[in-house]
Amino acid sequence: MTELNNHIVSAFDRDLEGIQAQIMKMGGLVEAAIMEAATSLETRDIEKAERVRNGDKLIDALEETLNDEAARVIALRAPTASDLRVVLSVMRMSSNLERIGDLAKNIAKRTDVLVQMPQVGDTPTSLRRMAREVELMLKDALDAYIQRDDALALDVIARDEDVDKMHNALFREFLTFMLEDPSNITACMHLHFIAKNIERMGDHVTSIAEQVVFLATGQKPEDARQKGDETAAELGQHSASNGS
Amino acid sequence: MTELNNHIVSAFDRDLEGIQAQIMKMGGLVEAAIMEAATSLETRDIEKAERVRNGDKLIDALEETLNDEAARVIALRAPTASDLRVVLSVMRMSSNLERIGDLAKNIAKRTDVLVQMPQVGDTPTSLRRMAREVELMLKDALDAYIQRDDALALDVIARDEDVDKMHNALFREFLTFMLEDPSNITACMHLHFIAKNIERMGDHVTSIAEQVVFLATGQKPEDARQKGDETAAELGQHSASNGS
Repeated sequence: MTELNNHIVSAFDRDLEGIQAQIMKMGGLVEAAIMEAATSLETRDIEKAERVRNGDKLIDALEETLNDEAARVIALRAPTASDLRVVLSVMRMSSNLERIGDLAKNIAKRTDVLVQMPQVGDTPTSLRRMAREVELMLKDALDAYIQRDDALALDVIARDEDVDKMHNALFREFLTFMLEDPSNITACMHLHFIAKNIERMGDHVTSIAEQVVFLATGQKPEDARQKGDETAAELGQHSASNGS
Repeated sequence: MTELNNHIVSAFDRDLEGIQAQIMKMGGLVEAAIMEAATSLETRDIEKAERVRNGDKLIDALEETLNDEAARVIALRAPTASDLRVVLSVMRMSSNLERIGDLAKNIAKRTDVLVQMPQVGDTPTSLRRMAREVELMLKDALDAYIQRDDALALDVIARDEDVDKMHNALFREFLTFMLEDPSNITACMHLHFIAKNIERMGDHVTSIAEQVVFLATGQKPEDARQKGDETAAELGQHSASNGS
């Protein structure tokens, strides 16, 4: 009987290992997509942007495989409550990763259009820096997942505030460029969408880190965390200071 | 033995019924949030906007309850593969609903700022019309879920294209307003974020409808469906026609 149980447990563990290997592979591809998207914008490299767009298909396919595999494991192994929690968290994480991949693809699409316009300040470099921050957060969130390291996961959650600050600062910059010279409007709209996409990537990474905290401690990270976009308030101030 | 199986099956069915009742309740709240957010923008009603912001807490709490309940049912009932599929789809649907609720809350936040600025054309009315379309799609998607009606779900998916068209048309309008008069820029930025939020609501409703098709037919809706935001292309054209 004990042997039978051991057998069942280890079969689940083997399955779980397989799933975790897949999620790390997916994570690696998404990390690369974030940086490739931001770099192709900065260097105005349309070929690299196209690679990001095409690469997203593989990320989508991995999510589908992961979900099918997770559902198969649940149906086949009838995991205990705590094992089930791990499998369900993997499904959520893969959904977050897939969305980050989508956002990288969106950036790459806008890059194709932006290269046809004059550059607006050195904002693409600021955007690449912001993307780099998010990429490092994702790397740490995935490490934290594998190690079940809630301290590292909480650190990732805290760093999302820096990303939000970068986004808010960039937003003010875009607004200034647009008000100064209306011929900047179209480019700035694109650039701000890109900033917003990177900010949303940070939210998804944070959501992964929150899963890790929950897995490691059984507790949800206490604060229902600020959602980051303070541009509503920013815009209000800005318009007030412009008297419009 | 048969009796035992029947007993087990009906316990699962009872649980599932409870979960489905919760998801319909959540759906009803989200439908209301969509329209309240859009109407408060149109009528510049800050109190209504505040109700939307506060109401989102209840939607979030319902998602959490639903997820806990779904995990409990999986662990307790060890459902068959096809029953499991239903439970997992409910978890995804609740995640989509929660995000729609978040987007409604974001609209309400921006309304607070927009009421301090002069109105830009009759765009709030167009936005309310767009929101109404999404609300009807959500209503039908939830009906399709309860009835396992894949034809209705496919109809919902098709209608998302209209929402995308409305978004693209509004985007062109905002761009024109901004180019004509830079003092419109801040208000237009807000209004366009709102349009984008409604467009994303449509994507989430579509994702719910896709779950329904999968549940009813075992097939995923064939086309990997257009993602809707064609503003990258639009902006390109616009800037080309402006020679900038």
